[in-house]
Amino acid sequence: MNGDKWVYDFAEGSREMRELLGGKGAGVAEMTRVLGEDRVPAGFTITTEACVQYMNGGRVEPEGMAEQVAAALARLEEHAGKRLGDSEDPLLVSVRSGARESMPGMLDTVLNLGLNDESVQGLAATTGNERFAWDSYRRFVQMLGNVSRGIPGELFEDAIAAAKAARNVTEDTELDADALKELTETFKGIFKERTGEEFPQDPREQLSQAIHAVFDSWLGDRAIAYRRLNHIPDDWGTAVNVQQMVYGNKGPTSGSGVAFSRDEITGAPEPSGDFLPDAQGEDVVSGVRTPRDISEMEQWQPAAHGQLMEILRALEHHYKNMQDTEFTVEDGRLFMLQTRNAKRPAQAAVRFAVDAVAEGLLSKREAISTIDVSTLDALLHPSFDSSEHFDVLVTGVNASPGAAKGGIVFSADDAVAAAGEGRDVILVRPFTDADDVAGFHAAKGILTSEGGKASHAALVARGMGRPAVVGAQGLSIDLKARTVSANGTTLHEGDVIALDGGTGMVTADDVTLIPPGVNEDFERVLEWSDEIRDLGVRTNADTPEDARRARELGAEGIGLCRTEHMFMAADRQPKMRAMIMATDRAARQAALAELLPLQQQDFEGIFEAMAGLPITIRLLDPPLHEFLPNAEDLAAQVERARIEHSPELPGLERLLERVHEIHEENPMLGTRGCRLGIMYPEIYEMQVHAILRAAKAAPRRPHPEIMIPLVGYEHELELMRELVTRVAEQEGMAVGTDYTVGTMIELPRACFIADRIARHADFFSFGTNDLTQTALGFSRDDVESAFVPTYLDRKIIDRSPFETIDAPGVGWLVRLAAWVGRESHPGLKLGICGEHGGDPTSIHFFHQAWLDYVSCSPFRIPIARIAAAQAAIDHPRVSF
Amino acid sequence: MNGDKWVYDFAEGSREMRELLGGKGAGVAEMTRVLGEDRVPAGFTITTEACVQYMNGGRVEPEGMAEQVAAALARLEEHAGKRLGDSEDPLLVSVRSGARESMPGMLDTVLNLGLNDESVQGLAATTGNERFAWDSYRRFVQMLGNVSRGIPGELFEDAIAAAKAARNVTEDTELDADALKELTETFKGIFKERTGEEFPQDPREQLSQAIHAVFDSWLGDRAIAYRRLNHIPDDWGTAVNVQQMVYGNKGPTSGSGVAFSRDEITGAPEPSGDFLPDAQGEDVVSGVRTPRDISEMEQWQPAAHGQLMEILRALEHHYKNMQDTEFTVEDGRLFMLQTRNAKRPAQAAVRFAVDAVAEGLLSKREAISTIDVSTLDALLHPSFDSSEHFDVLVTGVNASPGAAKGGIVFSADDAVAAAGEGRDVILVRPFTDADDVAGFHAAKGILTSEGGKASHAALVARGMGRPAVVGAQGLSIDLKARTVSANGTTLHEGDVIALDGGTGMVTADDVTLIPPGVNEDFERVLEWSDEIRDLGVRTNADTPEDARRARELGAEGIGLCRTEHMFMAADRQPKMRAMIMATDRAARQAALAELLPLQQQDFEGIFEAMAGLPITIRLLDPPLHEFLPNAEDLAAQVERARIEHSPELPGLERLLERVHEIHEENPMLGTRGCRLGIMYPEIYEMQVHAILRAAKAAPRRPHPEIMIPLVGYEHELELMRELVTRVAEQEGMAVGTDYTVGTMIELPRACFIADRIARHADFFSFGTNDLTQTALGFSRDDVESAFVPTYLDRKIIDRSPFETIDAPGVGWLVRLAAWVGRESHPGLKLGICGEHGGDPTSIHFFHQAWLDYVSCSPFRIPIARIAAAQAAIDHPRVSF
Repeated sequence: MNGDKWVYDFAEGSREMRELLGGKGAGVAEMTRVLGEDRVPAGFTITTEACVQYMNGGRVEPEGMAEQVAAALARLEEHAGKRLGDSEDPLLVSVRSGARESMPGMLDTVLNLGLNDESVQGLAATTGNERFAWDSYRRFVQMLGNVSRGIPGELFEDAIAAAKAARNVTEDTELDADALKELTETFKGIFKERTGEEFPQDPREQLSQAIHAVFDSWLGDRAIAYRRLNHIPDDWGTAVNVQQMVYGNKGPTSGSGVAFSRDEITGAPEPSGDFLPDAQGEDVVSGVRTPRDISEMEQWQPAAHGQLMEILRALEHHYKNMQDTEFTVEDGRLFMLQTRNAKRPAQAAVRFAVDAVAEGLLSKREAISTIDVSTLDALLHPSFDSSEHFDVLVTGVNASPGAAKGGIVFSADDAVAAAGEGRDVILVRPFTDADDVAGFHAAKGILTSEGGKASHAALVARGMGRPAVVGAQGLSIDLKARTVSANGTTLHEGDVIALDGGTGMVTADDVTLIPPGVNEDFERVLEWSDEIRDLGVRTNADTPEDARRARELGAEGIGLCRTEHMFMAADRQPKMRAMIMATDRAARQAALAELLPLQQQDFEGIFEAMAGLPITIRLLDPPLHEFLPNAEDLAAQVERARIEHSPELPGLERLLERVHEIHEENPMLGTRGCRLGIMYPEIYEMQVHAILRAAKAAPRRPHPEIMIPLVGYEHELELMRELVTRVAEQEGMAVGTDYTVGTMIELPRACFIADRIARHADFFSFGTNDLTQTALGFSRDDVESAFVPTYLDRKIIDRSPFETIDAPGVGWLVRLAAWVGRESHPGLKLGICGEHGGDPTSIHFFHQAWLDYVSCSPFRIPIARIAAAQAAIDHPRVSF
Repeated sequence: MNGDKWVYDFAEGSREMRELLGGKGAGVAEMTRVLGEDRVPAGFTITTEACVQYMNGGRVEPEGMAEQVAAALARLEEHAGKRLGDSEDPLLVSVRSGARESMPGMLDTVLNLGLNDESVQGLAATTGNERFAWDSYRRFVQMLGNVSRGIPGELFEDAIAAAKAARNVTEDTELDADALKELTETFKGIFKERTGEEFPQDPREQLSQAIHAVFDSWLGDRAIAYRRLNHIPDDWGTAVNVQQMVYGNKGPTSGSGVAFSRDEITGAPEPSGDFLPDAQGEDVVSGVRTPRDISEMEQWQPAAHGQLMEILRALEHHYKNMQDTEFTVEDGRLFMLQTRNAKRPAQAAVRFAVDAVAEGLLSKREAISTIDVSTLDALLHPSFDSSEHFDVLVTGVNASPGAAKGGIVFSADDAVAAAGEGRDVILVRPFTDADDVAGFHAAKGILTSEGGKASHAALVARGMGRPAVVGAQGLSIDLKARTVSANGTTLHEGDVIALDGGTGMVTADDVTLIPPGVNEDFERVLEWSDEIRDLGVRTNADTPEDARRARELGAEGIGLCRTEHMFMAADRQPKMRAMIMATDRAARQAALAELLPLQQQDFEGIFEAMAGLPITIRLLDPPLHEFLPNAEDLAAQVERARIEHSPELPGLERLLERVHEIHEENPMLGTRGCRLGIMYPEIYEMQVHAILRAAKAAPRRPHPEIMIPLVGYEHELELMRELVTRVAEQEGMAVGTDYTVGTMIELPRACFIADRIARHADFFSFGTNDLTQTALGFSRDDVESAFVPTYLDRKIIDRSPFETIDAPGVGWLVRLAAWVGRESHPGLKLGICGEHGGDPTSIHFFHQAWLDYVSCSPFRIPIARIAAAQAAIDHPRVSF
């Protein structure tokens, strides 16, 4: 406890004191410490603890605070050589909030404090700019009135509008000094009318009101809502920072600018930035005047420039990261106002990391930590050339990164036919289902008018690394007319369009696609990540092509090889249907016997691509209806055949009858996964034969991990393990040495009894997609386009639980199952193969849950490798 | 540890020594203790610990066991005055297994041990029955050979068949003494051929082999499988009981019988039973000879009869329960062979409980504990008169208890029409859905050819107390021809059938229905239960009729009033459809405004029926598609209209389009529950207005508990609570005093964050149906008819998780949510309103999870009251 000390000068603090001084207070203090008191406008911080006392005491300042503020202000005045409210050369201060965690825009700020009817004259005199002085004063009245006394902002805005109307001008900047002086009087009138008090002329009274206003803003509705959403405790409180204001617009030897310690676009090791003489910071970024490049500052103010260059190096060295700073030169004197780690595009992030290690600035671990993995997608996929102009036809959900261009087709069959002729096509559909998967392979990109990031189209596209824009709601698709329209433009089949799945943009213009920029630096960063991470990184891949691509990108095996897509191919579907239409086991076995050699070929290709690496193969999982036609289409066909007395009627009726037989209200919760294997063991038997025969045929014997899906009862796995080992004995192969057997953990019940399930499993792979569906009661196919947008709007969720793992629900289930599973079976291998395996936030979670590996789409592998390394750096695994 | 003592005489044991002596050993010992050594054939028990040592030692007897067995046998011989293997009057013994828990048929038994080529002569002489003696010997050879040496039973059976063929007879009983003597020789030959050893003539060697055989049977496949299924640890082992055999077939002063301490049908306080002179126990129960009533025993053997009557009283007194005994009279001397608590029908169970309290035999708590609640259904519903003969047309799943009779109708509309004309009808459908609900009200009973205990038909019928037989697979229903056939019989619309939902039987005969027998005794038992139980008992009721009925049966409020059925009624459906077809909020509100007064009336009726009691009302829960027609039917209609150029086409197309818009792949996991309320707040607003206006209109102000369904995120409940309180303020009503707001806990995620949800809830009601669906991934509508039958067959589950709560998965979620919910909100009221609320096993679980109440179908209420009392008796709630 810092009992009675409520106020700290900037020179007393440091970045370690974030809890007490807030983020901003600690940051300014740190910069003061590093650069010296002369380089940072001085000031002091009133602590978060003072705020807590104020709140607990019913909005009354804790004892001693007022005296400490007065003393700190006196020290500040002495340091600045100016007095608050002075009529000749007044000290002005800003009063800003600063909580432990940044809460952008949620808490209040008052600038230009210290102005009153007298000191405004002094400001005008010292800046030689009367207009500026009065504009500052009217802003101060407005801010203090609004922030401290709750006067509605529109009252002030209306007055400004009236002033402009009276002078027949349209822009605020067109109001001259006299107009602003009048406006200030009007504002003071509003203040008096609404509060019953004169606008305070005593700067100490102004300061007191401003400090209370900041404290009070912590308890405002906006801030409370923000904290709830971001899990920030209410009892942290906010600190208040009081800082001397400096001005870059005092004349030709003053100026403002922003500067980066390295090139913010390329990461090249030369400082970059912009500045403007005789200007304030906001002028530099507002675009009203064209700023000058930082290199030109040397001519203008060589001393300040030299100091700045040195400071940039010092800050980068101190913070061990590329810095993004703001500075002001006041009468030739350089002041640093802010420094923070620079946001940067992927290329700069990677280059900085590699250079910083080479320069000895950072260790490899430190360098990896500086990379924002969310930016890296751009390095892995083509994108639109942003230097070109193009008209955006429509914007949808950026569902699968990468850009693609091609002629429009409206069906999977057309896409396959076009690919056969070597044409590039974009598959355009209202939505997609299992029947369309062949079209995904054939098309360069996918565009749908419905669905969200977890729609079928999005999932399949991401899985294959196909660019996709989904849920483009402005799009109107007419499948019969074979046209697609948006915003008044109508395109026909064959017309060329381009889409960028990283941004969601679609254009009919011939935009250039820029190829991905994987380079040496990136390779270096990936190598270092591999040295650091604890988590293995595997891929989800169903085809030899995907497997090969994933291996090139660093996959250490396959974490999920789905077998159902293999039955969707054109030459397999009739056989699969024959199997489903079979009325007895013998007929089913006959159909399966025809599928066996085809399935074996599939596995041979994959084993070859992944030679020597582990491959988890999931036995058939989806409900059988997915392999039959849609009931509604079929019912319409039957009706037509009936009316037209078609000879096809009996066959269609039989098919419809079977569709009805296997119809389920909620197929997600129905007869699928191992339930199929238990009801129709011959299906799994065929698959196991195919896997093991392919393994025997492989030149280098692979190690297949046979995965039983949707286990909820230990006896399910026990029975299926018996089936697998029985078939394997027929093939002369032994469990443990030639292959292993495990299960997908994707039901809440399975997590609760994971200890019992683990007794029959060599491995668990968490199916976090289905675990999310069941734990949350969210049908992936339905909710993203239904209520999830509303839920995001209403702040019930802050992102889709299919994107980042839902830690409170799904996360606990994963932790629980991992813990008790390993407790009962210490050698149990644990992985995760849901979509979350490629999401950095989720990867951190899985690292901390002590899983062995994550598995993700081929194109997410580099990101997963780096994210896993960052997780290992942030949370080293310590045995306990 | 009983280190070196491996053998206990029966006279040394007691029922407390069950773990050491096994169930049977402890039971016989107890009876010996209670009745004295002369009344129970003497013997000794080799302990379960001996078995454990034998197993651990690689099937070698522990040191000292052989000597102790020899000594016990010597004591037995002395006590019996006979010697094992004696050639004149041999002692014969049985050797039986007896584990801690009963494992019926899983472990082995050897009878007549002690017979050999010499003693068989002695047995023939003392019984005067040579045939009996040889039959006993050949049985012994067969049993020891099979049990101890693993000789396949069919070898012996084949030899018996050959012997019968040779003598040209068909029944075993037709083989005379000589034939049996020959057969015994043949059996000994088989024994030698298969084992390479002579059949042991030394009775001590026989005994040793039999004991080892029983120990070994503990390790048999059958027993291991049984233990796994019943969660019996492998390391318990089994005890072995060696007991002197007695014979009721020694002549006219011998006999056997069974006797109950009270009338086993009515429970009247007079002993009942059957006996046969000169017979063995199996003759009494086999039906070969007609046994005589126990009251006639007095003439035959007055002394033994008197002793038996006294023993029955003594045993009943000792065991504090109605007893079911077996006895043998050997040469005028009464031996008690077994006593156990009598299984009895509901009426007898209830009468015994009441009488036993009146007699001072039992306390109320003890009396309640003697009732098997699973039998009580019969008291609450009509049933077929089992004394009449009738032909069973077909048997289905006994889905909702009670018997009903009426003319066949094939549609809900026809049922409603018939009910309007006062006709009794049975609604016969392949399966039912929401459209059929009106038909359930109108029909006397429901019969379907598909579905299981958790099908829509079963659930709705149970909820309404309508008898139902579902999934009668032998039934072939032709809705077009309006016929139903089964087993060669075809019935037409209007033909009378009767069904018994308690047994699953359906008949076309005019069987008499016996009305339910609720009587004074039953009322008494229910009153006592109410005094004892901790759990409240509420009902699930959606109509005033159900509410009234439930109240008569003792409901203490409504735990679940669903509001969706109210929209299914014929006058509401068009308005509901108009609401769903509305394209904007204004149109939706207009449609809802029409529904409001109707909905208000619904609540007024229910409030009146439940005046003064709490009523939990769930706001609209099901997905909206349930109120629109089926997509497939509609697609066929559209196709027909298109071909026929019908003017209805545009309207039908619009409807189909809307059906498509709200179609969901998995509606169970889609836009339903509070997700509807968040997307279309006007629906919930209308419902809250209707509830609160009805409450204000009620003569006695009710206390509605407004329940928000399907909450998974705390903010969902927060938003919906805001909605409710806002509407309530408009109605001038205050939360807490005029009504409360709570939520249904039915998603796994909700259980994990129940502490946070509880902050916005006055109560939780566990929706264990949906919690089962999500935790297990079992769609209730689909799985019961799909894979659950296979799962029961394969012993993956032992009963449907929709019938009895799945403790390892769903149960943990309930415990977790109850615990953390109460921790964060100590006054939180906790109930359960899933189907499990009426299941005795589940009620025990909920009692132990410290819930406040269960809610169940009206007709399950008496059972729930008694089950709750039994739970309170078995597991008193002790604060900790």
